[in-house]
Amino acid sequence: MLRHFAEDLDDLRNRLLEMSGLVEDAVYRSVLTLLEKNAAHAPQVLLSEAHINQMQMEIDARATRLLALQTPVATDLRTIMAAIKINHDLERMGDIAVRIAERAVSLLSEEVVGEAPIDIPHLAKLAQSMVRQSLDSFVKRDAEMARSVLVSDDAVDDLRDAIYEALIGFMQADPRNVRPGISLMFVARSLERLADHATNIAEDVLFLVEGVDVRHHAEVRQE
Amino acid sequence: MLRHFAEDLDDLRNRLLEMSGLVEDAVYRSVLTLLEKNAAHAPQVLLSEAHINQMQMEIDARATRLLALQTPVATDLRTIMAAIKINHDLERMGDIAVRIAERAVSLLSEEVVGEAPIDIPHLAKLAQSMVRQSLDSFVKRDAEMARSVLVSDDAVDDLRDAIYEALIGFMQADPRNVRPGISLMFVARSLERLADHATNIAEDVLFLVEGVDVRHHAEVRQE
Repeated sequence: MLRHFAEDLDDLRNRLLEMSGLVEDAVYRSVLTLLEKNAAHAPQVLLSEAHINQMQMEIDARATRLLALQTPVATDLRTIMAAIKINHDLERMGDIAVRIAERAVSLLSEEVVGEAPIDIPHLAKLAQSMVRQSLDSFVKRDAEMARSVLVSDDAVDDLRDAIYEALIGFMQADPRNVRPGISLMFVARSLERLADHATNIAEDVLFLVEGVDVRHHAEVRQE
Repeated sequence: MLRHFAEDLDDLRNRLLEMSGLVEDAVYRSVLTLLEKNAAHAPQVLLSEAHINQMQMEIDARATRLLALQTPVATDLRTIMAAIKINHDLERMGDIAVRIAERAVSLLSEEVVGEAPIDIPHLAKLAQSMVRQSLDSFVKRDAEMARSVLVSDDAVDDLRDAIYEALIGFMQADPRNVRPGISLMFVARSLERLADHATNIAEDVLFLVEGVDVRHHAEVRQE
């Protein structure tokens, strides 16, 4: 019985890793669509998202079944709870990748006067690295790595604010820049949301590894 | 033991109801700040959000403890799982209320030429009614009411798209309208996100009452 449970828990973890691989790939391709200005990457993002949605429901059902059929305690219970939360964040990240890819494609046909004075590649790189680190910290149960994700979140927020301000000037300079400026603003917002979900995952990893709830900058230790 | 568990479950449900009252109030005041153009409502939204964050952590810990100390099955397990998810959505809604209130306050000092040709009150009313209905459907375990929330979600998306288009024309007409136009766009986006979370809650209620996973338009029945 116990051995069976350990195997089920491993299966759950492996499915989640598989899903996180899909999400990382979808995010990567959505950013490529944007930076390379190449719509050819977008269809794969949409396909991945459909697959991610399916996996989310399957992982949720699997986790719920484990809670129902077994009586997990302590670390095992925390693992299942973290899996449920990470599953939710991964699904949201898949949605965001689709939104970035769609905006990147519509940007291709939007007339622009001059070039927007913003560093989207930098923001994309930061967000992607947070996504990768948060998922790695889950795989390796590495609290230090998870904490480093939390630290990066402020840099992402500052960069997004700077991009918003620069885009306002860009749109004010020429009415033709309003439409692409708004698309770029939503892209910046989506990248920042990806970083938020990476932060959520890092918080879940800390809860899993150390039993500490670090959300809202509180530190509540679970019995 | 069983009786004790039933009481604990009632406590969990009651805490969640208390939290949902706070969220509904925060949403209401954030919309008032916007529609009445009155910054006096905003501080209460921020206070409520701090309280909501605290409750979220407490409810999460309570639910986890119930899973650990008891061995809930069937409906009880589904209730706890739904409580964990609804708790998460409520916390996000508290954040969104703060964002709406903050944007409403910054709009007060932003110069506008003419009036934006958009129906924010209509969108706000729709979103608020979805929030109320989703919470009511949870309280009354009313699947019909939950389904009606799902139906409204498309109307909200359409209205948001129409508002986006109207705001683009408004910003193109005069560069001074760029900044307030963007604030209004983010407000519309926040209202639409509130409706999304109401939809999530309605989906959780359907899962709770009928054991059916209706996310992603799939219907997966739980054993």
